[in-house]
Amino acid sequence: MREITLRAKPLRASDFAPFGEVIDTDGRESRWINDGTCRRFDGLADIDVLAAEGRPLLSIFEASPRALPLRIHALERHPLSSQAFFPLEAYPFLVVVADDGPAPLAERLRAFHSSGRQGVNYRRNIWHHPLIALDRLSRFLVIDRGGAGENCDVLAVDGDGVFVDAPVDTQGGA
Amino acid sequence: MREITLRAKPLRASDFAPFGEVIDTDGRESRWINDGTCRRFDGLADIDVLAAEGRPLLSIFEASPRALPLRIHALERHPLSSQAFFPLEAYPFLVVVADDGPAPLAERLRAFHSSGRQGVNYRRNIWHHPLIALDRLSRFLVIDRGGAGENCDVLAVDGDGVFVDAPVDTQGGA
Repeated sequence: MREITLRAKPLRASDFAPFGEVIDTDGRESRWINDGTCRRFDGLADIDVLAAEGRPLLSIFEASPRALPLRIHALERHPLSSQAFFPLEAYPFLVVVADDGPAPLAERLRAFHSSGRQGVNYRRNIWHHPLIALDRLSRFLVIDRGGAGENCDVLAVDGDGVFVDAPVDTQGGA
Repeated sequence: MREITLRAKPLRASDFAPFGEVIDTDGRESRWINDGTCRRFDGLADIDVLAAEGRPLLSIFEASPRALPLRIHALERHPLSSQAFFPLEAYPFLVVVADDGPAPLAERLRAFHSSGRQGVNYRRNIWHHPLIALDRLSRFLVIDRGGAGENCDVLAVDGDGVFVDAPVDTQGGA
């Protein structure tokens, strides 16, 4: 097996569907509330956190920026819950996922680029890389699971090296 | 009873404690994760959405800006759940709350000013005003309750008129 470099693709709901949901308002249904002063887009992700007496946990993550290309050493997954991330200052970030197989295989990895106005929700058991912030310290609101039980597996990616890089059209500052 | 004008106070956890939680990282415990690339601040709000077979619902609200001073006609409350709001582009906003009494009394209203890097989580049954965005259309991530059951009461505020205004030191653009 040879080295692989993944070019991140724009994050689109249809491409990301095998891994979870893109959290954004594009093309989503809404309704007006509060006397027409506010538009509400409901149920943008399947928050699956109640297994094994789990409860919803709201957190903030502060992620340090990563230099690209970034070598992907390992991925993680959460066997008891989904995990949702939304960027808090609209900074772009990268997403690397595999699937829900027994281990994250190099040739199954996919990379996506969030515009910064999009979040992601990883489905339970989907292999994914920790946050890949770009350019600057980036804060994210996170909704995952609180409660007892082991809920994080980490496994090395097989092969001779997988790297993720920005999409060609956003290199040099998206 | 005479007219009341509320000057919003800076949103501080201790002042807001009777109404719920301020969602921010100031003074909160954290731990390093992901090989020291990310700092995690856990459990920043009590997400209370499971009553009566409820489930966590993740939504985005787009709130139109309000002109100040704003007359407070009515407040709402959610008898089955908390409701959390976090601003998505770090724009400041105002919060108006009463308490969990049977009706929102004019002389019990309080107003707070979020820096835009702070969210709020209203506890179940706390009377609160719908989103008060300032200056521009503002997006918020919202975590409340999905499921059957009537979960929104709205009541007019008593008295001769309550208005909310920006804090003196942020008027003219915070």
